[in-house]
This record gives sequence, structure tokens and C-alpha cells, in this order.
Amino acid sequence: MTKKKSVELVKGELMRGFTPFREAKSKMKKNYSVIVVLVFAISLICTGTLFANEKTKAEVAYPDGYRQWTHIKSMVIEKGHPLYESFGGIHHIYGNKKALDASKKGKAFPDGSVLIFDLLEVKSADNAIVEGQRKVVGVMQKNSKKFKDTGGWGFEGFKGDTKERVVTDPKSACFNCHEPQRQKDYVFSTYRK
Amino acid sequence: MTKKKSVELVKGELMRGFTPFREAKSKMKKNYSVIVVLVFAISLICTGTLFANEKTKAEVAYPDGYRQWTHIKSMVIEKGHPLYESFGGIHHIYGNKKALDASKKGKAFPDGSVLIFDLLEVKSADNAIVEGQRKVVGVMQKNSKKFKDTGGWGFEGFKGDTKERVVTDPKSACFNCHEPQRQKDYVFSTYRK
Repeated sequence: MTKKKSVELVKGELMRGFTPFREAKSKMKKNYSVIVVLVFAISLICTGTLFANEKTKAEVAYPDGYRQWTHIKSMVIEKGHPLYESFGGIHHIYGNKKALDASKKGKAFPDGSVLIFDLLEVKSADNAIVEGQRKVVGVMQKNSKKFKDTGGWGFEGFKGDTKERVVTDPKSACFNCHEPQRQKDYVFSTYRK
Repeated sequence: MTKKKSVELVKGELMRGFTPFREAKSKMKKNYSVIVVLVFAISLICTGTLFANEKTKAEVAYPDGYRQWTHIKSMVIEKGHPLYESFGGIHHIYGNKKALDASKKGKAFPDGSVLIFDLLEVKSADNAIVEGQRKVVGVMQKNSKKFKDTGGWGFEGFKGDTKERVVTDPKSACFNCHEPQRQKDYVFSTYRK
């Protein structure tokens, strides 16, 4: 066997000998890519879930049974009023027990207080104004930790008789108008005897 | 002593002898008159008390705590409305639990049901209508035995924030207007969800 042949043989053996390794390496690369994609996807899912959980935690709950809570006061906003576009109609304010007690005493609202702004369309005819369909159920829910950026109050609106949320930015949509009411714990309405 | 003198003496003795008796008789007459007057007065008082009790029994009770009852619906009656003189302003209907359950189910109201017609003045300014002073707290109290002449409902009105009763004739002042609502147990309002 010449030296050249010997070298070729060794090369050939080496080639043969390395083929499975190369294939394995190639497979590993593929697997690695799959793992990377999977890890990335799982991370995305986890992050999404975490954010979703975070969002759920900070959400204002739908105020089940609020129509049985105490009626605090009412008001009619008519065409021409600066808030007509958003709040035109008749609205009734309701409060759960915690909110009611605070409202009566004129004290700051404790966590757990919930106030409702129940807005209905009005029908005016023959010198009478009667209630129409529900437009929105506005909710203020007190939780000084969860909603610390908006005075300790969470703000939400539920469309008509549904549980569809309509407030995307509570700060600009709600809190900015309530902020000047700081001395009254950001609440406009007081209990009418 | 002549017979004549003797007779005079006897007459005199008799007279003297009878004087205390006559005085006693006179006193007895006076006492009797006093007793008769007293009995008569007591009878009058008793009869008056009985009638008063009877009246109290048939009265509609003041609805203590009604502002904590469930708000059923509201309406505004404006100038020009045929009922403006009596019911102009904003009124809220409230019901106690028995009344509310019946109102929700659309069934006849059981005894013990109480409905409130809480009428407030309104102040209209800058395209908004806000609540003013209380005008009257109207009450319908169901008791089919006590108020059988007015559909089983007792009607009363309490002036403003007082307990001064304002309904003198429930039939003409209240029931006559409610009578056509016989199919709805003489009630106009139904629970608005």
C-alpha cells in the first residue's frame, strides 16, 4: 500500500466514520431549532398568561346584583349639556353597603366600596320623561392597592345589558374628570336622603 | 200644751229631724249628677279611644327605611302634563321585598307588600335636571282585609320629610286613578331591570 493510498483509505475511513456524526450533528441542529422555537413559544404563552392574569387581577368586576343596592341619587343630562355625548339620558347612582355607609358619613370610601353609574336612555313625550334602554353600567370599585394610579379606584363601563367592557384607558376616560374631586375621595355623588 | 202647739212642736221636731236627711238627699242628688256626668264623659272618652284605635288600625304606616328598599323605576313629570299639579317633579318608585318579588314576577301583591312613590322637586339648569326637595312620600300598603274598599291597598301621602298625613279621602284622591289597573293589582309601575 503506497503512502498516498493509505492516506486516501484513512480519509475514506474517516469520512465513513464521521458520516453518522455529521448526520447526528445535523439532527441535533434541527432539534435545537425546534427546542428554541418551542421555548420561545412557551415563553410567549407564559408571558401572555402572566399578563392576562395581571390584567384579570386589575380588572373591575361586573357588579352582580347592583340593582338591589341602595339608590343614592339620580340626574338627567339633556341635549346641549357638555357631557351629553357621553352621558346623555337619565342616570341613577347605586352603592353597595360599604360605599353607602361612607357616602352617608361623608368619609373616605374603604376598599371594597362599589359605586354604580347606571345610565339609561330617556324618552320624552307629552311633558313626561320616561326611562328607556340601558346605555352603560359605569362602575367605580375601590381597591387602593390594585388601582393606586387612579386614586385607589378602578373604573369600568359595561355596555348596555352586556358584560362587554368599554373603558380602554381608565385614566383619560374616567379618572381625569374625577381627579378634582380629591377632597371627596374622587366621588361626585353624595347620598340624598 | 194645746194640741195645736203640740202639732207645731212635732212638725218642728220632724223638720229638724229631717233636715240632715234632706241635705243628704240633696248631696246624693248632686253626687248622682256628678257620677252621671263622669260616666257619660268616661263613655265618650272610651268610645273616642275605640274609634281612634279603629282609625289607627286602618292607617297606612309610615314606611321607615324605605330609602334602603329596591329602586323599581323613575319618571319625570314636567309642566304641561295633566298630573303636573299633583305630581310634577321626579319620582322614584321603591318596593319592599314582598312588593319587589311580586313586581318582578308580575303576580298579585301579597299582604305586607309596600310600594313607595317618592316625589322630589326638580331643578332644571344648563341642560341638566337635578333633584330638589322632597314633596311627598306616597305609600301603597297591601292589606286585603283592612283596605278592602280600595282594592286591598291602603293609600297615604306624607308631606315632604315629615310624617304629616295628606290624604283625607284615599278613594277619590288615589284609588279612582288606580282602579283601571285592576289587571295589574291596581299598580302602575313594574320593575325595570
